[in-house]
Amino acid sequence: MEKEVKRFHEIKVSVLTVSDRGHRGEREDQSGAVILEVVDSNGWELLHYSVLPDERETIKNELMRLADEVGSDIIFTTGGTGLAPRDITPDATLEVISREVPGMAEEMRRESRKKTPHAMLSRAVCGVRGKTLIINFPGSPQAVREGMDVILTVLPHAVELLKGEVSDCGR
Amino acid sequence: MEKEVKRFHEIKVSVLTVSDRGHRGEREDQSGAVILEVVDSNGWELLHYSVLPDERETIKNELMRLADEVGSDIIFTTGGTGLAPRDITPDATLEVISREVPGMAEEMRRESRKKTPHAMLSRAVCGVRGKTLIINFPGSPQAVREGMDVILTVLPHAVELLKGEVSDCGR
Amino acid sequence: MEKEVKRFHEIKVSVLTVSDRGHRGEREDQSGAVILEVVDSNGWELLHYSVLPDERETIKNELMRLADEVGSDIIFTTGGTGLAPRDITPDATLEVISREVPGMAEEMRRESRKKTPHAMLSRAVCGVRGKTLIINFPGSPQAVREGMDVILTVLPHAVELLKGEVSDCGR
Repeated sequence: MEKEVKRFHEIKVSVLTVSDRGHRGEREDQSGAVILEVVDSNGWELLHYSVLPDERETIKNELMRLADEVGSDIIFTTGGTGLAPRDITPDATLEVISREVPGMAEEMRRESRKKTPHAMLSRAVCGVRGKTLIINFPGSPQAVREGMDVILTVLPHAVELLKGEVSDCGR
Repeated sequence: MEKEVKRFHEIKVSVLTVSDRGHRGEREDQSGAVILEVVDSNGWELLHYSVLPDERETIKNELMRLADEVGSDIIFTTGGTGLAPRDITPDATLEVISREVPGMAEEMRRESRKKTPHAMLSRAVCGVRGKTLIINFPGSPQAVREGMDVILTVLPHAVELLKGEVSDCGR
Repeated sequence: MEKEVKRFHEIKVSVLTVSDRGHRGEREDQSGAVILEVVDSNGWELLHYSVLPDERETIKNELMRLADEVGSDIIFTTGGTGLAPRDITPDATLEVISREVPGMAEEMRRESRKKTPHAMLSRAVCGVRGKTLIINFPGSPQAVREGMDVILTVLPHAVELLKGEVSDCGR
């Protein structure tokens, strides 16, 4: 039990909100706030949090820095996953990961689909860069909450696997 | 209410049936007919309809033309999504889109799976080229009908997002 | 009826277990054994079975050889589909296939998800190289059993389509 708790504490997290309006200070970052609450309530360590504009190169560079230099175990992003011309978070993510984890994104869409058909339009990606797991959430607080509920249970094991602390999940 | 109706009317659609036998006139295009019925009953504007052979370059060039020159909001294709050697519609589609929308294809397969396990073999792709949404349907009238039922409700919003008329779907 | 039985017999199968420990003889290959049982009970022809280490180039070369030279209708792999640093079977598979069949992998994850949320972490890929279908299973006997149950029913038809013996599955 003690060990389990310790493991949760060891997860180092970065949070990126992607929103032109949020970046210009025109919109309160409610979606980022939902992620920060989850980080806090699980006792994870927050390494970084910022709000970026929907600029592909900016997002790519920040994802690479947070993975390679800052040493995040998980980077959560929110926003920019839809079909609007400036929605490019999944595309920036695909460019910096080496291995996709399609099942996490599928399962989030499938759960979200039970609430609204618009969940089909989320292009959110989950994948791995080095030892860092990158998770895209859509840009609404409700979608973040639902998505986090779906994947929360597998995150500690995913981080252990990425660190090479265990070699096999039996699946 | 008026606005909603107007919005539907504004969707400009192209339809491509991909079938060697259809192209040679050896088979009636029942699947294309199903799409044309849906276009008509929703009051969408039909810009183009044709039957192409299963030739990768031909399909690619026509998809690019219908998106970039003809200005389609949505291009529906039917046929060529399976495992037969000449089934290459999804592959041609992947080459011309810049952003995949995996949730639409997933959801169509998942619904179709309830009717037949063969739905697993559909490689149909949905994605975006510029401001155009490209939707692959399998080659049977029944599969087109089922797939259309799954995605119909999100198409008007998808087109609005692509045009930049709204910036956020909250998902 | 007779024809159906004959068709099953004609499927030529290769089996690759990917496991560093299995390759060094430190672990019994229980997952491979599950696949071999299915091959036997369906009366398929076994062309090849071996245990490889988690080495990307080794796996790629063996997949290409078993497809192009050995002439396998289906190559089943087990192992190396997770998030551990040396899990690279799906990545090696993606490099040698020309057409992905996402619905098969989706459906296996979705079924497995009913048993354990860790199913989300499987990155298993299904796809086509030439006339050969390549199927990744995770590395546990239970996951192989569950995955095989999901796809078994469509394998004969998939092989027929790949061989060009039928041109259309109506989906």
